[in-house]
Amino acid sequence: MKNIVIKSENMDKYVIGLDYGTLSARAVLVSVKSGEVLAESVYPYPNGMYPVGVSSDGNSGNLHTLPGSEKKLPADFALQEIDDYVEAMYDTIHKVVQLSGCKAEDVIGIGIDATSSTFLPLSENGEPLCKSERFRTNPHAWLKLWKHHGAQKEADDITDLAVKRNEKFLMRCGGRVNAEWMLPKLLEILRKAPDVYEMTDNFMEVSDFLVYLLTGEVTRCMCHAGYKLLWNEEDGYPSEDFLKELHPGFSNLKAKLKGREVQVGECAGFLTKAAAGKLGLKAGTAVAASMIDAHVAVLSAGIDGPKKALMILGTSCCMLLCSEKLSYIPGISGCVKNAVLPGLYAYEAGQSAVGDLFDWFVKTNVPGSYEKEAADLGISVHTLLCEKAGRLAVGESGLIALDWWNGNRSCLADAKLSGMILGLTLRTRPEEIYRALLEAAAFGMRAIFEEFESSGIIPKELYACGGIVSKNPFMMQIYADVLGKTIFTGSTNQGSAFGASVYAAVAAGSDAGGYSSVAEGARAMGNMGEKKYEPIPQNVEAYHKLYREYKLLHDYFGAGGNEVMHRLK
Amino acid sequence: MKNIVIKSENMDKYVIGLDYGTLSARAVLVSVKSGEVLAESVYPYPNGMYPVGVSSDGNSGNLHTLPGSEKKLPADFALQEIDDYVEAMYDTIHKVVQLSGCKAEDVIGIGIDATSSTFLPLSENGEPLCKSERFRTNPHAWLKLWKHHGAQKEADDITDLAVKRNEKFLMRCGGRVNAEWMLPKLLEILRKAPDVYEMTDNFMEVSDFLVYLLTGEVTRCMCHAGYKLLWNEEDGYPSEDFLKELHPGFSNLKAKLKGREVQVGECAGFLTKAAAGKLGLKAGTAVAASMIDAHVAVLSAGIDGPKKALMILGTSCCMLLCSEKLSYIPGISGCVKNAVLPGLYAYEAGQSAVGDLFDWFVKTNVPGSYEKEAADLGISVHTLLCEKAGRLAVGESGLIALDWWNGNRSCLADAKLSGMILGLTLRTRPEEIYRALLEAAAFGMRAIFEEFESSGIIPKELYACGGIVSKNPFMMQIYADVLGKTIFTGSTNQGSAFGASVYAAVAAGSDAGGYSSVAEGARAMGNMGEKKYEPIPQNVEAYHKLYREYKLLHDYFGAGGNEVMHRLK
Repeated sequence: MKNIVIKSENMDKYVIGLDYGTLSARAVLVSVKSGEVLAESVYPYPNGMYPVGVSSDGNSGNLHTLPGSEKKLPADFALQEIDDYVEAMYDTIHKVVQLSGCKAEDVIGIGIDATSSTFLPLSENGEPLCKSERFRTNPHAWLKLWKHHGAQKEADDITDLAVKRNEKFLMRCGGRVNAEWMLPKLLEILRKAPDVYEMTDNFMEVSDFLVYLLTGEVTRCMCHAGYKLLWNEEDGYPSEDFLKELHPGFSNLKAKLKGREVQVGECAGFLTKAAAGKLGLKAGTAVAASMIDAHVAVLSAGIDGPKKALMILGTSCCMLLCSEKLSYIPGISGCVKNAVLPGLYAYEAGQSAVGDLFDWFVKTNVPGSYEKEAADLGISVHTLLCEKAGRLAVGESGLIALDWWNGNRSCLADAKLSGMILGLTLRTRPEEIYRALLEAAAFGMRAIFEEFESSGIIPKELYACGGIVSKNPFMMQIYADVLGKTIFTGSTNQGSAFGASVYAAVAAGSDAGGYSSVAEGARAMGNMGEKKYEPIPQNVEAYHKLYREYKLLHDYFGAGGNEVMHRLK
Repeated sequence: MKNIVIKSENMDKYVIGLDYGTLSARAVLVSVKSGEVLAESVYPYPNGMYPVGVSSDGNSGNLHTLPGSEKKLPADFALQEIDDYVEAMYDTIHKVVQLSGCKAEDVIGIGIDATSSTFLPLSENGEPLCKSERFRTNPHAWLKLWKHHGAQKEADDITDLAVKRNEKFLMRCGGRVNAEWMLPKLLEILRKAPDVYEMTDNFMEVSDFLVYLLTGEVTRCMCHAGYKLLWNEEDGYPSEDFLKELHPGFSNLKAKLKGREVQVGECAGFLTKAAAGKLGLKAGTAVAASMIDAHVAVLSAGIDGPKKALMILGTSCCMLLCSEKLSYIPGISGCVKNAVLPGLYAYEAGQSAVGDLFDWFVKTNVPGSYEKEAADLGISVHTLLCEKAGRLAVGESGLIALDWWNGNRSCLADAKLSGMILGLTLRTRPEEIYRALLEAAAFGMRAIFEEFESSGIIPKELYACGGIVSKNPFMMQIYADVLGKTIFTGSTNQGSAFGASVYAAVAAGSDAGGYSSVAEGARAMGNMGEKKYEPIPQNVEAYHKLYREYKLLHDYFGAGGNEVMHRLK
């Protein structure tokens, strides 16, 4: 009885956000009114990733082949089992409803985001091609994860042709096509598995596919298409002429990109009876247009307009900034209208290795004595290194690094660049190198902001979310000092899943108890800014000098001064 | 009886070589005829080094002050207890005589070498000033080890003045004065402890002092003076004019550099009765002029003439090459006539960190899992890394490094340079970095040889000795591949001590059963060339390309392209 009284008093409604990361999915059930997270559930993909992934039991896998196949997969492939994604959806949504104890009829919307471009080929009857006997062991019929790097040659070929033809879409994607995007991966399929290409009726982003499973509606969220298929709201997809010159087989490509075009915040459809039954929810519940994981996080930050940059700091770094202006910025990952906030251009840029870089160092470069010291203190090696590094003054170690351990995504957009450390002496200690790597990541971010600023897209406020925010406050202070600006951070770890729930509330609409616009939802539910990092003036000054050194090396090794990194690859 | 018969048949005589390293002394007793080492004895200095040294019990010391003093020593000081040196002499010589079982009258000579410039101030009665109550706690009265770096400012000042005055001696020392030499250390004493300077009657290299203790003769071997006091056979010491301009107090410097001038291979004097008694040897036994540790190793290699380069590969690297020609070579450590082989110019060059660099990596950068793997296999971490690195092809890792962890001694002669690693990725493993460091050391050596070659001093044959030769055959192969030449190595670990024994045989002279010239002694007793490393053609080619990259970075960071390393210091 008490429960019912409270509900009727509060009239609260709930939304579910479901976020598909690289190795697990995470759902949250959120109060529409307060933005409070009432329940969460995580589902690691039992089959991890092929080849060489980490399976859900935490063991480093040695999965060099696909199940049932003896053919070794190339090391740069990244394939996944679609059933893991489907099961994750039913499992986590079911669990958060159960855990929260709320009534099914009070859940008014579901939002799903995923990494991108993470997609799969479907047959005419809407089944994943990889489930058919014929294609079960063909890697190109599988779900290709964003980090599948088998299409580098294809990406380069697309860039080369686009540059040759002076294609207009280049100005929106930083002047170059990334191997992680959908178009090069499609060309890879066409070239290497023409039978897979031939038999595919529709290439779908996995988040669109999951929306289809829930609603029976075939939709295509143009947020994905904008960043990963070179689509834009003015000119649409690359011209047929361009596609045909790329490969004659691409003449029918657009027919294989089916689905009603939708934008973020739109309602893609409603829960079918079958899906509702499986989830313990009400048929007819709104399901939002699918989204890209990084982009939905902007809403978690409470960002509701332009000039507010969000840095998503995890294994890699993604920076998003909305603006009314369309401008050419070299080396960005993309610029797509309506991709985050309706009416605004959403610029994306990023760094290929941030947390990954620090983890590499901890796993590969820290002596046993440090591992033991951390274990004795009951802290992580990261924390130990931060404590030791925190006792150093800015510049004390005499080290400087270039943060390109996984190439440079922005501003140089060059995957063949590599990492560098300079200033090493016989007295250099691990914490000094660790600190230099943290600083290099922050310098890389500053270089990106400077590129934006020189194109007239100026971030006035900085927000941060992602694993590093909660795990590494020392790093956050370095960001504030290097960037010379206050950085606002939130209290939740559910960045993307939470953001997806905001879109769910918008898809449900105000009549159902949700919100009538994305900005309104973001303001009402977003919870960022509870904690902030203020720049320390003397550090800002010291880092300013160090950054000049970084930039000099950045330009020398990255912009043609010495192409040794290319030659060494 | 049997012993006596053998002796009379062989008529063999014996010599003792005594080598003073940084942390221990080592004596060998050697057959004059065969060069066979019959006994050896090592004496670690019980008091190690002040500050922060490693004491003889192997414990890393924490000796920040001098005994009896509360004043913390600067980190770049390196002071030692003279009694450790004296005791080492009596102890090791006594032991090798005992161990060998040979008769005292068959020992015909003693040779002593030491690091240089490692010297001490003596009072008028020939006593070390640091033994007096007045100066016991004054660091400038102590024995200063070669690696004492307290006189960097003084070295720079001397270079600056010499360049300004266009002093001729500059051409013999690579254009620049090193802080490890005697002249800057003397200026340091004059400036910082004028009372010590004032009260000093004679500044003596420690090896000259030990010769004095054995013979009662005050001699000064001009091999030391040539490299460390800017003396040369044509012009002598720097002019009084120059010295006075450097510091008015230096007007009487030459009076404080007492001793009969002797050359290597000369007889400095003969064992006094007192010393002979202590050692269990015959009074009147010849004692050779003192020597520099690196230079005597040339004789161990059996090098008897010009165009044969010896690389002494230990914690650092010293390269020696004799030539009939006097030529200006930028950035060398020195060029002194009669310093190794009478009549020839001995050129010295080197690298500041070789073994030290590899040790730094093993101590600072190798994860606990590798330490455990090595322990489980019962091998050193170095050996484990070599095994893993040996499975890589040349250039496979995509890494390249600059070997300047302890500055660059030659060809750039710049202590403010620092180390660099480039080409790092998230897949980079410790063995790849380790290999890149080994390769960088070899590239550094190649740069030195190229500098010599372009000055017309061409090494035709390469020899190597020192700890790395026996400990790291993998590194030796890299040297052969990078330098593109066969490298001859010996079987003995007693490089310097053995070389000192050859000079002892020469000092004794042929009448006493020794040799009449250094070249003759070297040929007869030297034992190098038993093992050799042949270059592998495809590696030579691959390294040739990598070396071009090294040289490009070497010149960019070392020769004015980007002085970031200076700015970061």
